[in-house]
Amino acid sequence: MRSILIANRGEIAVRIIKACFDENIESVLAVSAADVDSLGAKLADRIVVIGPAAAGESYLSVERVVAAARHANCDALHPGYGFLSERPTLVDACEENGITFIGPPAEVMRRAGDKLQARAVAESIGIPTGKGSPGLTSVEDAIRTAEHLNAYPLLLKASAGGGGRGMTVVRNPDDLSQGFVRSSTEALRAFGDGTLYLEPYIEKARHIEIQILADSQGTVCHLGERDCSAQRRYQKIIEEAPSVGLPDDLIVRIRQAAVDLATALNYVGAATAEFLVDVERNAFVFLEVNARVQVEHPVTEAVSGIDIVREQIRIAQGLPLSFSQEDVSITGHAIECRINAENSRNNFLPNPGLIEEWTMPQGTGIRVDTYAHNGAHVPPYYDSLIAKIIVHAPDRQQAVDLMARALAKATVRGVDTTIDLQLDIMRNETFRTQPITTKWLEESFLPARPAA
Amino acid sequence: MRSILIANRGEIAVRIIKACFDENIESVLAVSAADVDSLGAKLADRIVVIGPAAAGESYLSVERVVAAARHANCDALHPGYGFLSERPTLVDACEENGITFIGPPAEVMRRAGDKLQARAVAESIGIPTGKGSPGLTSVEDAIRTAEHLNAYPLLLKASAGGGGRGMTVVRNPDDLSQGFVRSSTEALRAFGDGTLYLEPYIEKARHIEIQILADSQGTVCHLGERDCSAQRRYQKIIEEAPSVGLPDDLIVRIRQAAVDLATALNYVGAATAEFLVDVERNAFVFLEVNARVQVEHPVTEAVSGIDIVREQIRIAQGLPLSFSQEDVSITGHAIECRINAENSRNNFLPNPGLIEEWTMPQGTGIRVDTYAHNGAHVPPYYDSLIAKIIVHAPDRQQAVDLMARALAKATVRGVDTTIDLQLDIMRNETFRTQPITTKWLEESFLPARPAA
Repeated sequence: MRSILIANRGEIAVRIIKACFDENIESVLAVSAADVDSLGAKLADRIVVIGPAAAGESYLSVERVVAAARHANCDALHPGYGFLSERPTLVDACEENGITFIGPPAEVMRRAGDKLQARAVAESIGIPTGKGSPGLTSVEDAIRTAEHLNAYPLLLKASAGGGGRGMTVVRNPDDLSQGFVRSSTEALRAFGDGTLYLEPYIEKARHIEIQILADSQGTVCHLGERDCSAQRRYQKIIEEAPSVGLPDDLIVRIRQAAVDLATALNYVGAATAEFLVDVERNAFVFLEVNARVQVEHPVTEAVSGIDIVREQIRIAQGLPLSFSQEDVSITGHAIECRINAENSRNNFLPNPGLIEEWTMPQGTGIRVDTYAHNGAHVPPYYDSLIAKIIVHAPDRQQAVDLMARALAKATVRGVDTTIDLQLDIMRNETFRTQPITTKWLEESFLPARPAA
Repeated sequence: MRSILIANRGEIAVRIIKACFDENIESVLAVSAADVDSLGAKLADRIVVIGPAAAGESYLSVERVVAAARHANCDALHPGYGFLSERPTLVDACEENGITFIGPPAEVMRRAGDKLQARAVAESIGIPTGKGSPGLTSVEDAIRTAEHLNAYPLLLKASAGGGGRGMTVVRNPDDLSQGFVRSSTEALRAFGDGTLYLEPYIEKARHIEIQILADSQGTVCHLGERDCSAQRRYQKIIEEAPSVGLPDDLIVRIRQAAVDLATALNYVGAATAEFLVDVERNAFVFLEVNARVQVEHPVTEAVSGIDIVREQIRIAQGLPLSFSQEDVSITGHAIECRINAENSRNNFLPNPGLIEEWTMPQGTGIRVDTYAHNGAHVPPYYDSLIAKIIVHAPDRQQAVDLMARALAKATVRGVDTTIDLQLDIMRNETFRTQPITTKWLEESFLPARPAA
């Protein structure tokens, strides 16, 4: 591999450029008109302007990205995350043009990326997916199914629709009949169909995901799990590795499920298998596979010592993984805080503009992945992630302390950022002392957050 | 230790602030009026303005520095390198004010810092110092002494003066009489005294220095050697660790000499013992002890994995070294290039001013210690060192290659720097393939350096 076209921007473009430097492969960055002066553009060996600021005419255009790779005489393409990274049509176009796509083959991406297909594969090898019961049209049906599931609390849902309408949480058998009638009536009114189905209701969920690396020789390894339960509107805010407070045997089963799934998918490349852990039932369900490098990959790099982006490049060259499963050893605890150019006190309103000052903390165990610097511009056209602060310490307590101290030393002027939010979270007693669930940030922390 | 006053500026101030962060001790930076907006000032927990830009009224004033430490309620002081770092009067003033000086006790600093005293201690324990013969007033004296020394080439020097006058290199016994007459005549004319002395002439010298750390419990450890032979006007330009191409037994003896000397001096803290290695005679002479952290300490940190500044802080707290001599293991090869704001094409003229752009390479094994950033000012009042680029790789060849690639990716606009010089050196065939001597840079490389 001689030259990689990086079809992305922001902090992940800088990250991939670093991996290219490490591998001594030329980095060519595809930039929109808004990013010609970005840090990535300065650090890349070359840049190619692929279109105007609007992502649809630049970062989201398969034609322009592939034309750029051809024009720049690149023999490989790294899609990063987001944008076109999970579009099988990009993989097809790369293949047609003799460009090595750094990611899974198109057919694998199609199967892994389609949630229904991926869940079907998971079910076929015995991985729980939280699929609901068949349709229920009578209270008798519901009672029989509930006895079979035997896992209260249960959730009654409308077969025909979503949006919460027709949903009832049933906490014990005595409430089932009444709940069925209420839900079915509401579903009939809302969707013209009173059919319901039952599924176990996960009251306390944690988002646990497994990092997978698989080479073209068929070796599939996991790098342990990440806990990404701190979310707002299904967007991750904080990620950690490893998880804490879950039973060892559960973690072992989840890791194995991810490896089995990647194997069943004939996966090649870096992937993340996402699961929801039901804390009270000590069980898990598979959610989806992300067939690309993940935003939060640095926490896994910190605790495993394995460079995931370099491994991606090695795999795409047909090389075997540089390590075996036995070599993987998880050391200490890592936390990543996403720093967005948003005002967390004003409904997380994006806040693009000129970064007048950008001073990041310096300390052992601190890593900052960013495209920001003094005088950098945060363009209004793309997502608001400007940096990731990652810390690595001997245990979670020390990692939280280190992150709090690091955040307190960060100085940004010119744009609002979520640094203040992250600092409040790091200082929160609940966050500091116990594992949180996916609802915690939105339902507990934010409503009770003290005024600035 | 609660709070450290950092009595320094530039890159070493930033470095010490990082160590304070790591040790969770408050950092208070003493700044001149020229440095109130420096990166160190932004990263420190607090700053104290100690005086105007002129160093004599700020960084070189014992009174102002100690008053700042008292005023800021600091219980310790780190002097960095240069400025007051080797002034025993500062150590005295700290003691008088109940401030822990992060360095050796005053009396140790006095003995170690006085070249004559330090050499006398070295001689007393059998470490060669290259001291010349007694005064010689006749050819017969000279012949007898030369027979005793038995180590041609020899150097005849005037006892009464310096500056090269009266100096003659004598390459074999037949030339001694003629050389003596010429030197003695010249010495008599220049200094009014024809007395000469003889010393071995080191034709090919390498500058080798040993990093010492000694705690207050009396444990003295070395962290191996550095080769700092790339010099211009006795200023180091490039430093490496470990040395290459010297006989193992010679290195063992030099390391042991440094440990013995530090022990004899009752040394406490970080020190560097400097030696000149006579390549042709496979011998060494002691030059001096530097009783402080050295500019080039990062190459030793890279190959040893030991944080020298944190150890300094630990030692000053009365703690034992965090490692034993047996723990010290040297891994790979590290190179540091000093980046000065100078024009290497115009007699190394200092070039202070506004740094319009400062983009440093990002890669595994690359460390940049600097106070520079986009929009930083290089003030005209102090030395011109703005950054140190340090690389660490499995062996010297790979380290040189990595440094060349790193330098080629660095972009600085606004001030001239020595990046271009360093890049030319890294690409030079002699530098790449064989150990250089202390004369190489000035006598071989620079005169033959190709035009830009």
